[in-house]
Amino acid sequence: MPIRILITGGTFDKQYDEIHARLVFKESQVGEMLRLGRCRVEVNLRTIMMVDSLDMSDADRQAIVQNCRQCDEEKIVITHGTDTMVETAEALAKATGVERKTIVLSGAMIPYAFGSSDGMFNLGSALSFVQVLPPGVYVAMNGRYFLWNQVRKNRQTGVFEAVV
Amino acid sequence: MPIRILITGGTFDKQYDEIHARLVFKESQVGEMLRLGRCRVEVNLRTIMMVDSLDMSDADRQAIVQNCRQCDEEKIVITHGTDTMVETAEALAKATGVERKTIVLSGAMIPYAFGSSDGMFNLGSALSFVQVLPPGVYVAMNGRYFLWNQVRKNRQTGVFEAVV
Amino acid sequence: MPIRILITGGTFDKQYDEIHARLVFKESQVGEMLRLGRCRVEVNLRTIMMVDSLDMSDADRQAIVQNCRQCDEEKIVITHGTDTMVETAEALAKATGVERKTIVLSGAMIPYAFGSSDGMFNLGSALSFVQVLPPGVYVAMNGRYFLWNQVRKNRQTGVFEAVV
Amino acid sequence: MPIRILITGGTFDKQYDEIHARLVFKESQVGEMLRLGRCRVEVNLRTIMMVDSLDMSDADRQAIVQNCRQCDEEKIVITHGTDTMVETAEALAKATGVERKTIVLSGAMIPYAFGSSDGMFNLGSALSFVQVLPPGVYVAMNGRYFLWNQVRKNRQTGVFEAVV
Repeated sequence: MPIRILITGGTFDKQYDEIHARLVFKESQVGEMLRLGRCRVEVNLRTIMMVDSLDMSDADRQAIVQNCRQCDEEKIVITHGTDTMVETAEALAKATGVERKTIVLSGAMIPYAFGSSDGMFNLGSALSFVQVLPPGVYVAMNGRYFLWNQVRKNRQTGVFEAVV
Repeated sequence: MPIRILITGGTFDKQYDEIHARLVFKESQVGEMLRLGRCRVEVNLRTIMMVDSLDMSDADRQAIVQNCRQCDEEKIVITHGTDTMVETAEALAKATGVERKTIVLSGAMIPYAFGSSDGMFNLGSALSFVQVLPPGVYVAMNGRYFLWNQVRKNRQTGVFEAVV
Repeated sequence: MPIRILITGGTFDKQYDEIHARLVFKESQVGEMLRLGRCRVEVNLRTIMMVDSLDMSDADRQAIVQNCRQCDEEKIVITHGTDTMVETAEALAKATGVERKTIVLSGAMIPYAFGSSDGMFNLGSALSFVQVLPPGVYVAMNGRYFLWNQVRKNRQTGVFEAVV
Repeated sequence: MPIRILITGGTFDKQYDEIHARLVFKESQVGEMLRLGRCRVEVNLRTIMMVDSLDMSDADRQAIVQNCRQCDEEKIVITHGTDTMVETAEALAKATGVERKTIVLSGAMIPYAFGSSDGMFNLGSALSFVQVLPPGVYVAMNGRYFLWNQVRKNRQTGVFEAVV
């Protein structure tokens, strides 16, 4: 069965608007990244929203939950801004109707469009973890995976670390 | 326990020699790639050889087996040229002394140094699979993983595919 | 005689701060760009300031003028934000003490650090124009050069165009 | 009047063939490079050949001469492999029918497709020199320009240097 990839925006997908000299969202680049990675995993991409995760509302989170609940796929990767990735993971873990699914949230510290990105590395990582981990809600960052309630983002270092 | 990364060369690590206008091996770039990927998995890197996998001898394969056998780590990623990756996987699977280890071979179709590489994607993928797969010898390419005896490289397309 | 390169910041030199998810100035990358370009022109680099050209004050412009006046070199390239490049060119053209110098201002629409930059192209262009143009103050953008009073930036398109 | 750009191949335009793991010529990337450089100089591109300059024959050189002679443009940039760039410059300088034209040969040490290329820098440089230099045949490399008979490529360093 294919893997569902839900796109929500985040640093992952930010681009540079050269006319206004600022970072913006345009089309998601996840499809292009999969092509560059020569990915041959069968995936279904869906862009739910394109937002900075600091701007994500409760309604946005419920839309993500709803997408996970309703899709046929049992393995789901969600691209997401890093700042509130753990909050969305919690919303998913506490929702009903997704208990039998493996859901992996991932993102990037550097926009893919900026060349030296961790996005390709994280995308390869998230797509791999989702194939082998048992049902549950996980965050995959920095080459590691964490259960939703055992992780936090260290805002000083930008690194995701285990909560002990 | 940390993950052992054994470096053997392959397209992954080829660079461009601008004086002689050809592809060569210099220092491995795997450490730099892990840094760019903001990888925080504890890893021990060791460069065993830097060769094109078409030039890999039986003695080279035995050196790889020996490294897997002797290292303390039980999870091992091997970066390897794609052309004979499956042969090395077979040599490992048939060797004694590595039965309790999870060994994942991976590589790239495009040198990392050439920008649009699948190397970052594959490295993220291999490092993730090795953390969760049970003991055995695997090939991780194109976002997928295969048991050593269920995969071949399609030389026309450059894609690794399941042997049925 | 070497060419003086005065660095003032601008989009050219913006980098991505991954902790705060915003564009910032760190060290100038002009030296690295010259190295990548295999540049063998003898140059003396000096960073005067690192500012967005929209934030450039009259005092900043006078500092640029003063640097051009006092340096020994007769050929000067100034890296500069595009938004007020023409204003700084005008300040230079109307200043005393720089009449015998060839001064070329250039910049970029995309930060060099973001990979697909016009910065390398413009830097090669500005360094070339300055070697062959007669004394005067010029803007070099989009592969073209303009006398200071015959150019404007079209803010809709981001392109520098001749004023007729 | 527009500038003629004649494309002959060279390292500039080499790409990586991932199926056969070697450097090859496909379509020229000069048009794409001009687009990335936000170039607004009016140019007419023509691909005459796509060869390694070590493989360039006398007939190939005569084809280049003939193209320079017959085109309407009086300013011509030629992209060319670095190894025999000086020989082609000599053939052009000794030919009849091009005396009133400004011809600038340029190239790259690193293929543009490999990211860290000097190609963007050199293209910006060559296009700028050709706009201001008087009629004659020049080599533009490393940010500098040389008259055809005052330059050689140093094969140890890959740098073009003045012949004294």
